[in-house]
Amino acid sequence: MVELPSDAVLVCIDMQTGFDNPAYGERNNPDMEATVAELLATWREGEKPIVHIRHDSQEPDSPLRSDKEGFAWKPEAVPEDGELVLTKRVNSGFIGTELESWLHENDYSTLVVCGLTTDHCVSTTTRMAENLGFEVYLVEDAVATFEREGVDGEHYSAEEMHRTALAHLNGEFAMVVESEHVNP
Amino acid sequence: MVELPSDAVLVCIDMQTGFDNPAYGERNNPDMEATVAELLATWREGEKPIVHIRHDSQEPDSPLRSDKEGFAWKPEAVPEDGELVLTKRVNSGFIGTELESWLHENDYSTLVVCGLTTDHCVSTTTRMAENLGFEVYLVEDAVATFEREGVDGEHYSAEEMHRTALAHLNGEFAMVVESEHVNP
Repeated sequence: MVELPSDAVLVCIDMQTGFDNPAYGERNNPDMEATVAELLATWREGEKPIVHIRHDSQEPDSPLRSDKEGFAWKPEAVPEDGELVLTKRVNSGFIGTELESWLHENDYSTLVVCGLTTDHCVSTTTRMAENLGFEVYLVEDAVATFEREGVDGEHYSAEEMHRTALAHLNGEFAMVVESEHVNP
Repeated sequence: MVELPSDAVLVCIDMQTGFDNPAYGERNNPDMEATVAELLATWREGEKPIVHIRHDSQEPDSPLRSDKEGFAWKPEAVPEDGELVLTKRVNSGFIGTELESWLHENDYSTLVVCGLTTDHCVSTTTRMAENLGFEVYLVEDAVATFEREGVDGEHYSAEEMHRTALAHLNGEFAMVVESEHVNP
């Protein structure tokens, strides 16, 4: 079991229906939503702090624009009263939001990160959190990503992008953990 | 050829001898230093802006601490008079430095990034640069990284960590380019 401080903050990133759009391609970890729902239930039961960050894309055709249906929360991760909701326009949850000041004001120093996508918004938010002085636990079975094309046109599966992103982060920016070991 | 604005800034990250320490393991792209030297020569010839960012590690045993020999610049990337030198203590060149304010004060909007390491400091600085509104070109043959262990103990070669890091960044945070196509 991971030793978490009693005020560890659960940070859910981009749990929005727009990511169900088939244009994103193959995704890994189909159990991600259920695992995030379990983490939310645990945090709510313990009355621990929760932050929901959503993406308001500025790209003209993105399903994650605030004027599109895909901006909506996934049903497994709808915020409840008393939980902080933040909206970002870039990958990092710390840029253009009050996340950093809110964490400092409340003296929160530890984040438990879940959501979408492992290599883009989750990775960028995790990197910046650690670099700003926070301790970060990244829940590997509560994040997921999509297949991508490499710089020479080579194909990477969603699982390859996910696992290599975790390898880039683990030990340097976060401790990568499994949800069954996380219990605040 | 990549169409760069005439004031594109060359950003050299962590070109320090500490990274020659064998404890880092196998590295890819042995030509990285020579390629960075060529970029520096091109930028200097054109009297274009150059920033050198170095790492002052806070880890007790890191070869990149400012009180260790490895803090020194690699001979291929020693700053010259008139070039900006910044020292960071975390991965992102934007945290704890005057990089962002200096870029804004000089009205520079485009960065050309090279140095070490593709998946840690280069990736983190690139992500934050794009998220802060800068346009970023990442020179794939002028960056390099090291072999790493995955979260389940699996081994990734330096070339695998490098190429997957580029795939995570390309199109989302930067345009990944080859040095022969970069000429400001």
